[in-house]
Amino acid sequence: MTFVLSLDAMGGDYAPQIVIEGAVLALANADFSYLVFGDERVIRPILANYPKYQHAFHLVHTTEVITNDMKVAMAIRGLRTSSMRLSIEAVAKGDAAAVISAGNTGAYMALSKLQLKTLEGIDRPAIARAMPTLKGRSIVMDLGANIECTSQDLVQFAIMGHVFGQRLLEKERPSIGLLNVGTEDTKGNMIVQDAAQSLKNIPHINFYGFVEGDDITAGTTDIIITDGFTGNVALKTLEGAAKLIQKMLQDSLKQSWRGKLGYLVAKPAFQQFKNYIDPRLYNGAIFLGLKGIAVKSHGGTDAVGFANAIRVAASLAADAASGQIASDMENLLTKEKFAL
Amino acid sequence: MTFVLSLDAMGGDYAPQIVIEGAVLALANADFSYLVFGDERVIRPILANYPKYQHAFHLVHTTEVITNDMKVAMAIRGLRTSSMRLSIEAVAKGDAAAVISAGNTGAYMALSKLQLKTLEGIDRPAIARAMPTLKGRSIVMDLGANIECTSQDLVQFAIMGHVFGQRLLEKERPSIGLLNVGTEDTKGNMIVQDAAQSLKNIPHINFYGFVEGDDITAGTTDIIITDGFTGNVALKTLEGAAKLIQKMLQDSLKQSWRGKLGYLVAKPAFQQFKNYIDPRLYNGAIFLGLKGIAVKSHGGTDAVGFANAIRVAASLAADAASGQIASDMENLLTKEKFAL
Repeated sequence: MTFVLSLDAMGGDYAPQIVIEGAVLALANADFSYLVFGDERVIRPILANYPKYQHAFHLVHTTEVITNDMKVAMAIRGLRTSSMRLSIEAVAKGDAAAVISAGNTGAYMALSKLQLKTLEGIDRPAIARAMPTLKGRSIVMDLGANIECTSQDLVQFAIMGHVFGQRLLEKERPSIGLLNVGTEDTKGNMIVQDAAQSLKNIPHINFYGFVEGDDITAGTTDIIITDGFTGNVALKTLEGAAKLIQKMLQDSLKQSWRGKLGYLVAKPAFQQFKNYIDPRLYNGAIFLGLKGIAVKSHGGTDAVGFANAIRVAASLAADAASGQIASDMENLLTKEKFAL
Repeated sequence: MTFVLSLDAMGGDYAPQIVIEGAVLALANADFSYLVFGDERVIRPILANYPKYQHAFHLVHTTEVITNDMKVAMAIRGLRTSSMRLSIEAVAKGDAAAVISAGNTGAYMALSKLQLKTLEGIDRPAIARAMPTLKGRSIVMDLGANIECTSQDLVQFAIMGHVFGQRLLEKERPSIGLLNVGTEDTKGNMIVQDAAQSLKNIPHINFYGFVEGDDITAGTTDIIITDGFTGNVALKTLEGAAKLIQKMLQDSLKQSWRGKLGYLVAKPAFQQFKNYIDPRLYNGAIFLGLKGIAVKSHGGTDAVGFANAIRVAASLAADAASGQIASDMENLLTKEKFAL
């Protein structure tokens, strides 16, 4: 099945360079093409390096760019033809199956809600991502879309996570944990306590209870629900931990001849390990709760990372049943609205 | 200098076994003794395994125990002779130089405030700990004492962190970062934005600005300030990440004969690496803002970890200038109260 992906070429710390390079990388063995929004004066020279792939890029010129430090209100109302806005609009209009941006998360979410609309029953979409765990992988959400959340928001995230997890993890009843500072019922603030109370009363979902920070990587539950502030900090803390630990390993090996020799002998294994913990390979988070597919790339990633975000969007776009996720979510949310 | 440390023998998941074993471990080359509070019927048989060290343990029998799922109000008002309460009281009375507990964090903090009193100018003490970073080590606080914080709380944490960091890190003006979901001024909620505004206006401290989750391990700033919910999740996420990454490394090495051979050759280096990332070696967090020294051990640690928490308390107790920290904090806080 061939389809079109929409790219915000100007979003992220190293745009448009890594956007174009990542898009080229993602084209290997793929059958999609791109609608690319951005400043053609900088994009064309980059594209010129890949004559073999130029046919897959359809450029739409625009000079307005939403920067990282721009307030959301300005990004929405001030810039009518920003590369981010136009790239989302392409999905809203049906010109593309999904949009990918590495730009300003707040603006991206706000514009996506505006253009793609939220699902029936959803107040606030959330950012979700699969993460590696000791048991396989788990979905963590919200990763930064909603800095402050009510207990009702967390309950909605759990319902969205349930439906998304059913498909992504291929489990009938994925287990759902609510991130907290302890597992006892008395722990945490009123928001997580109220959310836990509500989640216990929803028969459709498999609510496990509270989980803690180390349960994210332990894979204690299939899905971990938290507010966007905590989720964002946890995600970046994980990334930082991976860098620090890799450095500690290098330092340990360099300190002795046995360490150095062992490294040489086991080099392919170390390469494999490096791939395991490479955050670029996990790049690409999904905006859940929208009527269209929008994928957020890490702002600081490189071409390899951006290519992975594109692959995430492509796999969702290629999933014929992706419409099913939306309607399942709407059904469950509408049902729970009356039940709660 | 010889002194007495007070131990809550009944706090934590594996108490009193690991408390006594840890206390024995920490005694090696040390010149302190213990006041131990707990059920002597279970403690005596454990102590009997260490006849050489029995002289260093002075047991005070009590049967009341504060459990992990006990509400703080019950722990304070319901139990008048809990091992935790009595162990803190020993410091308040001057019978011990510091207290160590692996028990219920909320109850421990509440009882410590009650018994040891908070410093002049401090509304809410915070939990602080040094963590390894790419550049050395940094102090992170609050790690779970204050689940909900005002911007004023965060400012006070920063001032306490400044004074504590001066001594612990031996830096005149340790840099202070405020944990957020992005580094731009517009990021985050009102609480962190207001706190950042206030911190910019305090001349005595070296405020860096907002930092993100990965800055914790990057060592971007000497001190990282956050609320107790986010700090607790970040700390445990780091611990979980270390376990996952270690597992990924093992899996990578086991997959090939080169990996297995390289592991054998470099075994001492791997042992060193394992020590680097062993969370037990970083166990022992300090309650900052009290008039006495109280150290919190991870509830799930073992004897090696508990011994490290004891060493943290002992090093603070042995520091002749530790009274200076308290008076420096009080001076700065009182000054800033008028300035803000």
